[in-house]
Amino acid sequence: MIKGLRKVVDHKAFQSFILFIIIFNSVVMGIETITGLPDKVVLVLGLFNNICLWIFIIEMLLKFLAYGMDYFKDPWNWFDMVIIGTSLISALPFMAALRAFRVLRVLRSLKALRSMRLVSSIHHLQIILVAIVRSVPSILWTGLLMILIYYIFALIGVNLFGEAFPDWFGTVGKAMYTLFQVMTLESWSMGISRPVMEVYSAAWLYFVPFVLISSFIVMNVVVGIVVNSISEVTAEDTKRVQEEESEENVEAETDEERIKALTKEVKEMREMLARMERLMEKNN
Amino acid sequence: MIKGLRKVVDHKAFQSFILFIIIFNSVVMGIETITGLPDKVVLVLGLFNNICLWIFIIEMLLKFLAYGMDYFKDPWNWFDMVIIGTSLISALPFMAALRAFRVLRVLRSLKALRSMRLVSSIHHLQIILVAIVRSVPSILWTGLLMILIYYIFALIGVNLFGEAFPDWFGTVGKAMYTLFQVMTLESWSMGISRPVMEVYSAAWLYFVPFVLISSFIVMNVVVGIVVNSISEVTAEDTKRVQEEESEENVEAETDEERIKALTKEVKEMREMLARMERLMEKNN
Amino acid sequence: MIKGLRKVVDHKAFQSFILFIIIFNSVVMGIETITGLPDKVVLVLGLFNNICLWIFIIEMLLKFLAYGMDYFKDPWNWFDMVIIGTSLISALPFMAALRAFRVLRVLRSLKALRSMRLVSSIHHLQIILVAIVRSVPSILWTGLLMILIYYIFALIGVNLFGEAFPDWFGTVGKAMYTLFQVMTLESWSMGISRPVMEVYSAAWLYFVPFVLISSFIVMNVVVGIVVNSISEVTAEDTKRVQEEESEENVEAETDEERIKALTKEVKEMREMLARMERLMEKNN
Amino acid sequence: MIKGLRKVVDHKAFQSFILFIIIFNSVVMGIETITGLPDKVVLVLGLFNNICLWIFIIEMLLKFLAYGMDYFKDPWNWFDMVIIGTSLISALPFMAALRAFRVLRVLRSLKALRSMRLVSSIHHLQIILVAIVRSVPSILWTGLLMILIYYIFALIGVNLFGEAFPDWFGTVGKAMYTLFQVMTLESWSMGISRPVMEVYSAAWLYFVPFVLISSFIVMNVVVGIVVNSISEVTAEDTKRVQEEESEENVEAETDEERIKALTKEVKEMREMLARMERLMEKNN
Repeated sequence: MIKGLRKVVDHKAFQSFILFIIIFNSVVMGIETITGLPDKVVLVLGLFNNICLWIFIIEMLLKFLAYGMDYFKDPWNWFDMVIIGTSLISALPFMAALRAFRVLRVLRSLKALRSMRLVSSIHHLQIILVAIVRSVPSILWTGLLMILIYYIFALIGVNLFGEAFPDWFGTVGKAMYTLFQVMTLESWSMGISRPVMEVYSAAWLYFVPFVLISSFIVMNVVVGIVVNSISEVTAEDTKRVQEEESEENVEAETDEERIKALTKEVKEMREMLARMERLMEKNN
Repeated sequence: MIKGLRKVVDHKAFQSFILFIIIFNSVVMGIETITGLPDKVVLVLGLFNNICLWIFIIEMLLKFLAYGMDYFKDPWNWFDMVIIGTSLISALPFMAALRAFRVLRVLRSLKALRSMRLVSSIHHLQIILVAIVRSVPSILWTGLLMILIYYIFALIGVNLFGEAFPDWFGTVGKAMYTLFQVMTLESWSMGISRPVMEVYSAAWLYFVPFVLISSFIVMNVVVGIVVNSISEVTAEDTKRVQEEESEENVEAETDEERIKALTKEVKEMREMLARMERLMEKNN
Repeated sequence: MIKGLRKVVDHKAFQSFILFIIIFNSVVMGIETITGLPDKVVLVLGLFNNICLWIFIIEMLLKFLAYGMDYFKDPWNWFDMVIIGTSLISALPFMAALRAFRVLRVLRSLKALRSMRLVSSIHHLQIILVAIVRSVPSILWTGLLMILIYYIFALIGVNLFGEAFPDWFGTVGKAMYTLFQVMTLESWSMGISRPVMEVYSAAWLYFVPFVLISSFIVMNVVVGIVVNSISEVTAEDTKRVQEEESEENVEAETDEERIKALTKEVKEMREMLARMERLMEKNN
Repeated sequence: MIKGLRKVVDHKAFQSFILFIIIFNSVVMGIETITGLPDKVVLVLGLFNNICLWIFIIEMLLKFLAYGMDYFKDPWNWFDMVIIGTSLISALPFMAALRAFRVLRVLRSLKALRSMRLVSSIHHLQIILVAIVRSVPSILWTGLLMILIYYIFALIGVNLFGEAFPDWFGTVGKAMYTLFQVMTLESWSMGISRPVMEVYSAAWLYFVPFVLISSFIVMNVVVGIVVNSISEVTAEDTKRVQEEESEENVEAETDEERIKALTKEVKEMREMLARMERLMEKNN
């Protein structure tokens, strides 16, 4: 019976049906956002939402029955459980704050698409993902540096500008948010730096270096990922070329063997000649 | 007669004339935008516009007569037909809304330039275009991810901020436009996030992650195209180098043949020696 | 005498003196910008400025005397002549509008630095400059596409928004400036697009595609230059590696020659053996 | 005793303790920024701060005692001395302005983390850093060009717009800050260029070229670092491949030697044959 269940669960039609329900649910959640809907429609939409949730729960249970403990080996299943669990908990009246997380169900379509093999030739995307994963240690190191620089600049900012500009530099948290905004270069000068400079005319000594340093670090991360990705791709190419060359080396080895065989033959000939010479000398 | 027509249509003078008409038409459409022109001038400009359109129609018909069904094999011809068709339809009084599309005729100059072979050495541009075309599956995959993330953030945004900020998050569409603006980092903080944070002080938990995620995805697409382009270019270089090496391998094969020939000769010598030895032993 | 002049003109001390004058002149022009200077100081600064100009003229004449017609072969000298010529013309009372071009003299320091060989190991910078020069045809092609897209969007913009927003879309020129601003993503949404959308609610269909298209083209140019630069650098590396390999090939040729020599020797031996065999058979 | 001290100073527990103190001190400095703390808490925090400083001083002295003059060989130790020195000097009442530099102590955590070897596999980060260091000459050259362009545009800006816009172009310094803001594309058009264009309608001839030139130079620096990084990485890969090939060349040399040995043997055989032939001719 489990085998039959697996067949059902892995069947293309079943997966297409689930994908359809995910998209249908996404659309329902989109319609729900329209304000001024008649109460009846709101009720029906809520009903649809619940039906979709129940279908997802049944799908989850069917998969669990079909695969047993193997179910927990696929990270996508963990992803499903978290999303469905959050949806269930948010249905409780005192957890309504979690309702917003329902929309994460839309992300399930990614998995459904994957299982339907709609995407197959995404080789380079995978390489870039591999490169990004390999870049993680250096990114973490850069990220740590970034947080330290943020923290230091935030501390300085709070000490210097905190009193005059409580909205931007009132606390370390506010200062870090302001610095994040400055890093994205959004209104850093007209919005933040120039007003501050009207009070503290030397404030550009704080903002310009921060813009330069943060841009430099961001550039560093991007260059790092580009270089890692290219290195990954070329490493693969080099590997392929080397494998082809090693096949040629098999030929080369037989070349070597040929010379060795020739040398052996020539040595035997020399011995023959030596014997013949001795014979002839004896004859004379 | 068809052969003669082809000669006319493919003649450099004919194509130069069409390019001149396209540029002339572009200039006319530019002058038409000047407000406060005397009515006479407007009439004359309109006349010029119509003459240019008729020339384009005649060119299209000539080409069709010259090439028959082959005419439809060139995508540029389809492009012509769409532009001229839109221009014709927009001439109908009740389709004036389409008039703006007339300006797409300017794009025809690209084709004319191409057919005049003014550009020939744009090798790397082509490689990058190839790389971009090959990046399309991964970009689509990233684009799909992007749309899902947009949709999810838009749904959350409408639920959370929709009532307080109807202009920015009133509907899913408005929220997606706002998120596109945030993605381009335009006034995301001073214009959108800070006003929202004055009402919902934790709104940075919505905006900062979105800025980070969307920047990351955009960076991903750019890195992907860079890596694909480089991979494309180096693949071509490697191919060229390998072809050169394979030419050397022809030499290498003759080297191998030489050793084989030598071995054959030595073997024959050995047989000769063996015969001689037998003779000498018989002599003794 | 010309030889002596060349020695003077090419002498390090002379070039250092000119560099000092250029820097001194740059500083003088900087001080001149300070408002509220006493009249005496302004007079003295103007005097300094004129002295510097006369020194530059004398330097130019000396170089011309020293090198004759060869003087015009160095593009830097043309650069000098243009800058000094503009300065002289702007000294005429009715050409004061050209005075601003005087400041281009600052750029002469680049040349002076170059001739002093303060920079020698800027190998990669040169490669990138070479790559940029080689990218020019593809950039021109992209630039042409860009101008066409600008022109088309400007025409559409003037037709659609010209009446309601004369400051931004009143003429084709104003529209192109506005589109340039949109391309740099500066206040494109809060400053331009949202106000326009309040009048024409579908205006996002104009701005969002333009943002996407222009970003894509800019990305294209950047990727093109990156790829060309890398291709240039790796091509040079490959060339160096191939040269090293070709040196090994010289060895390989002698290897080939060795086998040929061996074959020749063996053939001669075979002939010797054949003669011996015939002798022995005769003996019997 | 010095050996014992070294053991203590290099011990993991000691370094963990120092890292803990650095983090604790960072947190204390963070809490100090909160306004409206009761006086007692402020006093305690100040006390903690001083204790941390004393611990750092003792750590510094212990290290100095343990390593002697070798202490000054590690640049990290210089870094420590500067930070602790600044903290000490800022404790003097008339140097309170330097207090802000205290927060640089947070950066010491970088060193502590390094010495704890929490990060080991940051190979590519190092390569990028090497590439950046090697890019320094070309960046300096570009930076010099940038400063000259800044200075020239600032001089022109002050001359043209200084009177009408004293806040933005009043002095060379203000103009350079404004140009830095324009380079980051922050509010360059809506904030600076459009207001200026309302007075001087041709001001776009100043701003648009500056935006293009500065973007081009920035792009140049980024491309340079990307290319240098990739060149560095591929150079390392090529080096590794060449080393592997040179190992194969050892084999190739023995191949060559084999042919030489064979030739020698064949020559000796030929001499034997020549002697035999002479013998036989004598016999006849």
